[in-house]
Amino acid sequence: MSVITLTTDFGTSDSFVGTMKGVIARIAPKAAVVDISHEGPAGDIRAGAFMLAAACVWFPKGTVHVAVVDPGVGSGRKAVAMRTASQFFVGPDNGVLSLALRREKVQEIRMLENEAWFLRPVSATFHGRDVFAPVAAHLSRGVPMRKLGPAAKDYARLEWPEPRRGRGHIAGEVIYIDRFGNAITNVDCPFLRELGAGRLEVFLDAKRRCEVGAYYLAVEAGQAVAVSGSSGFLEIAVNGGNAAKALGLRVGTVIEVRLGRTVRRAVC
Amino acid sequence: MSVITLTTDFGTSDSFVGTMKGVIARIAPKAAVVDISHEGPAGDIRAGAFMLAAACVWFPKGTVHVAVVDPGVGSGRKAVAMRTASQFFVGPDNGVLSLALRREKVQEIRMLENEAWFLRPVSATFHGRDVFAPVAAHLSRGVPMRKLGPAAKDYARLEWPEPRRGRGHIAGEVIYIDRFGNAITNVDCPFLRELGAGRLEVFLDAKRRCEVGAYYLAVEAGQAVAVSGSSGFLEIAVNGGNAAKALGLRVGTVIEVRLGRTVRRAVC
Amino acid sequence: MSVITLTTDFGTSDSFVGTMKGVIARIAPKAAVVDISHEGPAGDIRAGAFMLAAACVWFPKGTVHVAVVDPGVGSGRKAVAMRTASQFFVGPDNGVLSLALRREKVQEIRMLENEAWFLRPVSATFHGRDVFAPVAAHLSRGVPMRKLGPAAKDYARLEWPEPRRGRGHIAGEVIYIDRFGNAITNVDCPFLRELGAGRLEVFLDAKRRCEVGAYYLAVEAGQAVAVSGSSGFLEIAVNGGNAAKALGLRVGTVIEVRLGRTVRRAVC
Repeated sequence: MSVITLTTDFGTSDSFVGTMKGVIARIAPKAAVVDISHEGPAGDIRAGAFMLAAACVWFPKGTVHVAVVDPGVGSGRKAVAMRTASQFFVGPDNGVLSLALRREKVQEIRMLENEAWFLRPVSATFHGRDVFAPVAAHLSRGVPMRKLGPAAKDYARLEWPEPRRGRGHIAGEVIYIDRFGNAITNVDCPFLRELGAGRLEVFLDAKRRCEVGAYYLAVEAGQAVAVSGSSGFLEIAVNGGNAAKALGLRVGTVIEVRLGRTVRRAVC
Repeated sequence: MSVITLTTDFGTSDSFVGTMKGVIARIAPKAAVVDISHEGPAGDIRAGAFMLAAACVWFPKGTVHVAVVDPGVGSGRKAVAMRTASQFFVGPDNGVLSLALRREKVQEIRMLENEAWFLRPVSATFHGRDVFAPVAAHLSRGVPMRKLGPAAKDYARLEWPEPRRGRGHIAGEVIYIDRFGNAITNVDCPFLRELGAGRLEVFLDAKRRCEVGAYYLAVEAGQAVAVSGSSGFLEIAVNGGNAAKALGLRVGTVIEVRLGRTVRRAVC
Repeated sequence: MSVITLTTDFGTSDSFVGTMKGVIARIAPKAAVVDISHEGPAGDIRAGAFMLAAACVWFPKGTVHVAVVDPGVGSGRKAVAMRTASQFFVGPDNGVLSLALRREKVQEIRMLENEAWFLRPVSATFHGRDVFAPVAAHLSRGVPMRKLGPAAKDYARLEWPEPRRGRGHIAGEVIYIDRFGNAITNVDCPFLRELGAGRLEVFLDAKRRCEVGAYYLAVEAGQAVAVSGSSGFLEIAVNGGNAAKALGLRVGTVIEVRLGRTVRRAVC
């Protein structure tokens, strides 16, 4: 049984997501459809891209990931399917797939131009139903990539703010705020596993010092703590609270990590 | 594998929907259960009916659609199952199924009176679990309609406000506001496909002129645009914004379409 | 096909739940995963425990229930799997599983200590992904409980406020407020089926008299009514309204039931 995942900003208070699943059920009745999220901020391509990137690595080989955060639907933006060594990615070519592929070798890129795999007529406002769901369903049934449309050499990428590494410090920034108010940063570093071992210092806005710990409860209730988050990035939390609200953190807030002597020599 | 869809107003912050799926899994373990929506306004039969109508046409033959927006649960309202040429519809006989069937030929109507297909004892407040989920599961396993209860000649219908067509204009109204604030009207007309071709004019409250376009981005950010929506109706949107809030649109707001000379002769 | 249910406080606006489903799909591709709820209050173990307890009884034999409301993740709290005559329960040993087992005979308790069934490395903040999802998936594939870790004699239990029964009355309290504002109490009594037969009186705060009825519509719109709720407990509702808001009911509010002469003799 093959898996198709859906990441959209359609919400679940309308019938959009159910409609996509109906289309998939008609074409690929044996596919198991899994929701990643439909509740991200409407039109926020970066949030959708981050959720897909965080989740996709946990899925089986052969999974087809569909992401539709698509404020440009109906206009000139292209639609794309990509294949890595183990999975497929389908969506508008607006960057929403790009964070998931940041460290993957993309083996094939096809622009979705062969309308034989679409529902017709294609509406101007719901390509999730008319283009992306049916293409994903056909892919999961084994339709080869080359039949979807012409090969392309590249795809749209979101800019990913790489952390800047200096002598003894790393300057990163908040890239995502989750439901609990935890602020996930772009700082991913082998040393983060050792957070709590006392060899790192973390500063918010490069100024306010934040405790470091191995887990949320490592500090007292209501206190901020920097942990190595579950998606592999430095994460700022408040034990029992909402870090984003309590500390005024937003996407883009600078987070600085200063390395203790022991780890300074090895650049992480 | 057969498909059962669920459309309710139960929300997802309680265990009601999960409970219905447990009941279905016991009776029809191979059925694939698909959520259409559970997040419509509580008790709003019309909103539930609209979502089911918009989504059901995209599902495979043999799908069993369950809709439970049921403010009259436990009182005298009837429960019903209906069969069209290709699908089944199960729910309270309060109109929630009726918009989905507006253009369908209903081939069989059965009142759910045979308690052999219910969970027993039937509670007074959760027929989704005790009546509709088990009946749908049995239907999906092939139990014939005639075993569910006595045949009926008709079913409860919601009034559907038909647009009024005059010389050179169509007067409709808003029937649904989606999560993005897009206002879907009851104006469904072959000419809508040609929106943006300059042959129609659209007025909100029959007064304020609204740009027409083929898609949301056809106008500048923040501007209103009338498009041919994905469910086949005229839809008022704001590029990058919330049309209902920005323009004060509500269910019932009058929308008037004036036809250009070219299309006036053919009544759409 | 085996069923795995998920009850968490992760919400659906991030990718946490989708990620757990990816892990399950890799290990147990044929398992059907059913959401009970992910939208309860963050960190509210009692709310999660109540939802699991209300839903689990409706699922098939062999179902594996996973509950992750886990504010102590990463700290010293244990992880546990339990088996009853017909189902499995997996989660942190913090009480979240305990209400579901209140009336069940637990036949085997195992502490999750054998890391062979975890994803590794185990993160400090997301045991839903790294511990509970994979253990549940392995259980659903038939891995025997004894391989999960050492046997234990007991598990953490939430205190359940038993109603106090006196001469002619029962004093209980509100234990859960659902999405509609209905207040579910801990009063479960065979006589509740007879609510509306005029033999019981119900008082809020032990003072305000509340009508009793067989269903929500048994009173006029806007009026409060005490009904026998679908999970088997006395429930306070307002016909067409939100009882918790309208009547100021909260978890812990005392609800008193006074028994009429007919039923007083039999203690329920």
